Amino acid sequence: MEEKQERYRYTDLYDYAVELLGRVAVSREEAAIVAGALIQADLEGVASHGISRLPVYLKRMAEKRINPQPDVRIAQKGPAVLLVDGDNGPGPVVATRAIEAGIEKARQSGIVAVGVRQSNHFGMASLYCRQACEANMAALVMTNSPPGIAPWGGRKAFFGTNPIAFGFPDGTDTPVIIDLSASIVARGKVILAAKKGESIPEGWAIDREGKPTTNAREALEGSVLPMGGAKGYALALAVEVLSGILTGAAYGPHVRSIYAEDNGLANVGHFFILIDVTAFMPLPQFQQGIRQMIGEIKQVPRAAGWEEIRIPGERRVREAHRRRETGIRLPPAVVQELKEVGNRWNVPLPPSGWRDGEEEGGSS
Amino acid sequence: MEEKQERYRYTDLYDYAVELLGRVAVSREEAAIVAGALIQADLEGVASHGISRLPVYLKRMAEKRINPQPDVRIAQKGPAVLLVDGDNGPGPVVATRAIEAGIEKARQSGIVAVGVRQSNHFGMASLYCRQACEANMAALVMTNSPPGIAPWGGRKAFFGTNPIAFGFPDGTDTPVIIDLSASIVARGKVILAAKKGESIPEGWAIDREGKPTTNAREALEGSVLPMGGAKGYALALAVEVLSGILTGAAYGPHVRSIYAEDNGLANVGHFFILIDVTAFMPLPQFQQGIRQMIGEIKQVPRAAGWEEIRIPGERRVREAHRRRETGIRLPPAVVQELKEVGNRWNVPLPPSGWRDGEEEGGSS
Repeated sequence: MEEKQERYRYTDLYDYAVELLGRVAVSREEAAIVAGALIQADLEGVASHGISRLPVYLKRMAEKRINPQPDVRIAQKGPAVLLVDGDNGPGPVVATRAIEAGIEKARQSGIVAVGVRQSNHFGMASLYCRQACEANMAALVMTNSPPGIAPWGGRKAFFGTNPIAFGFPDGTDTPVIIDLSASIVARGKVILAAKKGESIPEGWAIDREGKPTTNAREALEGSVLPMGGAKGYALALAVEVLSGILTGAAYGPHVRSIYAEDNGLANVGHFFILIDVTAFMPLPQFQQGIRQMIGEIKQVPRAAGWEEIRIPGERRVREAHRRRETGIRLPPAVVQELKEVGNRWNVPLPPSGWRDGEEEGGSS
Repeated sequence: MEEKQERYRYTDLYDYAVELLGRVAVSREEAAIVAGALIQADLEGVASHGISRLPVYLKRMAEKRINPQPDVRIAQKGPAVLLVDGDNGPGPVVATRAIEAGIEKARQSGIVAVGVRQSNHFGMASLYCRQACEANMAALVMTNSPPGIAPWGGRKAFFGTNPIAFGFPDGTDTPVIIDLSASIVARGKVILAAKKGESIPEGWAIDREGKPTTNAREALEGSVLPMGGAKGYALALAVEVLSGILTGAAYGPHVRSIYAEDNGLANVGHFFILIDVTAFMPLPQFQQGIRQMIGEIKQVPRAAGWEEIRIPGERRVREAHRRRETGIRLPPAVVQELKEVGNRWNVPLPPSGWRDGEEEGGSS
């Protein structure tokens, strides 16, 4: 990496985000939810969903394209079903409230489906799996998102990267979290390659004619491909039906991007299924079953060149652990943007702790 | 194709299978379920789950390794949860009964989770999605299966091909069915390539050292790879937790193959989620939403070399339609095996209608 990156303490960035979100009239409690979602993404190495999004969030809240004081409410309910209207609030707030309501209901019915409409980008799906796991619920979490991938055989983005995520409480503080995007790669990686003038691997994207390309700039005019070819397309479609159609939210190309400069609401839809494992078996038995299976997976003979077999989500947990100690790296462009919004709302960006190649406290 | 393949009327094969299954003391009604599952697979072009499996099914039932007269019962229930014990019955029978019970319950609670243990291979997951769709339920269907794919970074099969399938009723007689296996390719295709001495594409499999291989024989000693790399592994794990652990069935390498010559029960686990869409919105609104989205997908500009954009499952529907007219092709080895079991139980295999390259009725 040629750019010198500054590293920040995650607690500093968190406090900064909370403070700034408070300035656009988000309640303290809800500011903490949004800031927590952003910082957790940076800790886990998912920078595309991290604090780099704060400036656009603030802008949209200030202009009320995202409602900073939403009245998240239950629009409809059945014995084991909730339909939540997010009132166009910040995605992490809407999703967190919806999961809270779902957990309460699942305790009675054993399983609950929570459909959410009128929401916005909620960050990493894994956050809500974790929230459910902390209440000893198994979870399926899906969301739609603005167009990013083309249907198989098409050359124009239609579906979002539409993740499906699973969370399984195993009695440890690192539950098993599986977070699958339907795209082969985050669009952010293609943008980065284009900026650096680098090529991208074969199979990642098509150009605007729909031909395979390794040219990152051409790829941005075309579409990122679904993972596993037709399978990723099929998965994106399934997630879209549950998140977009069944909830009465927007779907496919009708979901608006937070980055688009128009007046429409995003109307992102989410779909959650929470399962109280005790409806099937005592919790310790389930937890023990998972831990035993994980132990057996770890014992599978390794393929050539592999040092270990990792459980899904394990790398992210380690990464977060490391960054809590060593800080979160932010590229200069992001730092600059953060400083600008900080100036605008009179909240100074805290000093970075240290720079790459320097000792802690050595710079700024 | 060098081998001359005979083509059979699907109704003839169905009647034949029903008759034979009746000889091993499966009730008429349940024989019809199993035969229907096999023939539907052949109609849809999924030969690996078709009538080629009948001989091994019969053998296992005759020796009681599969229980031909199971007492499929509800072992546990909650307000929106069912745990079904399949009593080691034929997978299609167990799964069909479990879905029936689930539909009834979902009509009351809006969503139901049905865990199934003590089952066997149930054929195509799409069958049970279709069953749910016919009752206007949206469905998620998962099952585990004997080891077929290695964990990412491993070189020994641990998980089954563990499909996850979705079904969405759209008011037509061809609901949207999405059926995703966690493996990049069916193991059957590798077996076929090995038999023919052909190589396989890069990225399909690893050899017994865990190195990528295009040699089909080497691949059979190693493992087929998960689809989308680590993503398919993660998906297989999620399906395994819900189908195997949460139901109290077997999981991973503990699920026995129907082809293995030992005495253990397979103890396959399934996991179904059924959603009554009317808990969210009127059925016509949901159906209309899906049809409208499909219409929009079909209008996406096509990539170079593509004639149309297909909806998941569309190819299978067309294929089934075609084969109902033109017959089901069976390779000589399968015909031979079917004749042998026919002789054993005194049910003659019906004559094939015609052969490739000949007019209908021209041969046998």
